[in-house]
Amino acid sequence: MKKPIEEIIDRIEPIDQTYVENARNRQQKLTKPAGSLGRLEEVANSITGITRNNRPSLKKKRIYIVAADHGVADEGVSAYPKQVTFQMVLNFLQGGAAINVLGRHGSIDLRVVDAGVAHPLPQHEILIDRKIAPGSRNFTQVAAMTYQQAEQSIAIGIELVQQAKIEGIELLGVGEMGIGNSTSASAITSILTSKDPSEVTGSGTGITNDQLQHKISLIRKAIMTNKPNPKDSIDILHKIGGLEIGVITGMALGAAAEKIPFLCDGFISTSAVALAVALSTKVRDYIFISHYSTEPGQRALVEYLNIDPLLDLKMRLGEATGVAVAMHLVEASTKLLNEMATFDQAGVSEKI
Amino acid sequence: MKKPIEEIIDRIEPIDQTYVENARNRQQKLTKPAGSLGRLEEVANSITGITRNNRPSLKKKRIYIVAADHGVADEGVSAYPKQVTFQMVLNFLQGGAAINVLGRHGSIDLRVVDAGVAHPLPQHEILIDRKIAPGSRNFTQVAAMTYQQAEQSIAIGIELVQQAKIEGIELLGVGEMGIGNSTSASAITSILTSKDPSEVTGSGTGITNDQLQHKISLIRKAIMTNKPNPKDSIDILHKIGGLEIGVITGMALGAAAEKIPFLCDGFISTSAVALAVALSTKVRDYIFISHYSTEPGQRALVEYLNIDPLLDLKMRLGEATGVAVAMHLVEASTKLLNEMATFDQAGVSEKI
Repeated sequence: MKKPIEEIIDRIEPIDQTYVENARNRQQKLTKPAGSLGRLEEVANSITGITRNNRPSLKKKRIYIVAADHGVADEGVSAYPKQVTFQMVLNFLQGGAAINVLGRHGSIDLRVVDAGVAHPLPQHEILIDRKIAPGSRNFTQVAAMTYQQAEQSIAIGIELVQQAKIEGIELLGVGEMGIGNSTSASAITSILTSKDPSEVTGSGTGITNDQLQHKISLIRKAIMTNKPNPKDSIDILHKIGGLEIGVITGMALGAAAEKIPFLCDGFISTSAVALAVALSTKVRDYIFISHYSTEPGQRALVEYLNIDPLLDLKMRLGEATGVAVAMHLVEASTKLLNEMATFDQAGVSEKI
Repeated sequence: MKKPIEEIIDRIEPIDQTYVENARNRQQKLTKPAGSLGRLEEVANSITGITRNNRPSLKKKRIYIVAADHGVADEGVSAYPKQVTFQMVLNFLQGGAAINVLGRHGSIDLRVVDAGVAHPLPQHEILIDRKIAPGSRNFTQVAAMTYQQAEQSIAIGIELVQQAKIEGIELLGVGEMGIGNSTSASAITSILTSKDPSEVTGSGTGITNDQLQHKISLIRKAIMTNKPNPKDSIDILHKIGGLEIGVITGMALGAAAEKIPFLCDGFISTSAVALAVALSTKVRDYIFISHYSTEPGQRALVEYLNIDPLLDLKMRLGEATGVAVAMHLVEASTKLLNEMATFDQAGVSEKI
């Protein structure tokens, strides 16, 4: 019997270019100079190909914030103490975090996934308990998780998307919370892009330059200790990944298999998406990167994926905050395609 | 007695830095790394200084699309026939244009202002009749309008904003419709920035390269014929401007005087705002440029104004379409400032 990951990868089809071509033709007939809506046209056209729908609706929008702790946080790689992962999850549940404000503003359904928060969490209607372990291990010394846990994290992501599909979700977005996770994302980026850790490591939540040098040397040590195989995303996750990163990797695979447009957020979720694309290049055309993060590693991943982010607002918060802002314009793009009058309908003269 | 334009310029005050400083302090206490919301923090901070309100609401949002015809359109500067100005205004009234879709999506109140459409327009609840003349004159041969008409157009813009203030509007945006108006905007930009017309003229609605060369030579002719005074925005408007451009210039002045945050759209409305800033540099801090247009002239104006646009979606439609998309994130910025929990409130540990 095939493993769920192999099964899902087999099910991913390329996006349907017939729909994209139809949408392109319709864009020529709408009452505007052809191409004048720029990226809003491209986004809408892609979404018809993703969803196999000439008039796609993206009304039902959901964001998953996937949270987990990181053993490497014990090495002092973050400006914040490790318990902030747990404390911020409580803040999400209480509605006081940035993503709560943006979710309400954009009428976006929010779910928080506990993939591996060290501290036990209370039950809550928006919290989904998928705790694999109370955090990953310190990958400067041992593998971050077992190979089985890496597979399990991906399988959880796939399952969450399948459930969302059943619930009628039309546009999916992801973000993360996990003190220490930019260290993991930088290590993953260094392996995937063959760039030196110093080129793909940034100040994360805001560390000093000395702390940054320490962070880079820890990433070098983690790579030397674990020797992840650059051709095997699951091996990378197992050795230098994070539990939330694995879940997001699975969600990207699941979204492509279920034909749901998928928005990723900043550096950490882009690294998770890059692992999914490394597993199946067909995933790429289902993904939108919502914004450029100020983290240098995300630029490297944007190049690696060759996907142009939608926004550049100098954000570096995570939590899917970039996704929440970008969802408004992604939905707008499809409404324009669906609702604008044609030259014929409006009685407007066409180009001379 | 002072003229309304002088009166309004006298009333414009710098934005209040005390509020900006208060907002900056609050941003440090909200549950996120300081500065991690990037431009969303800067925008919100500015808006507190504009509105003199520590917790500004931008719920009541309105966009004015100002329309007028241009005599220079008779010279074949556009890819579309002149009657498209009138036809597109009807499309706005019927709800079929891009800005109608985006306005509905963003819950933005829309108004269309007839500043000088050549064809008579029917009465309509969202149409405001302020027709100064049935279009400007062909400025390659004569002045675009009289000096008095230029003053009148600005006075109309001021009056519209004063009325909006009375109606409780909290966030204002503008866009335009006018076949031929990118020729006027390029001429204005060349005068304000001292750049050669060839550097600030683009393909507008989508003309061929030969037509572009023709457009540039017409702009040179217009400048030689009229010799606008680069130090006098009203003289520039009078000689090479447009009726809708003058109204938008007035609206920018009015917004600064009434302390309402003001979003301009692409190339044409940015040129109108630049004329307002040339009249009073204090206007600058009340303005947000919603997006980078693909028109080269707008880049020159962005440099001239030294205001960084919020979005870069390769749009070049006008109609305030960029404004409508950007309003969502501008409002989001203030909601974040107002609604996020502080570290204290949420019980989240601060930076180590």
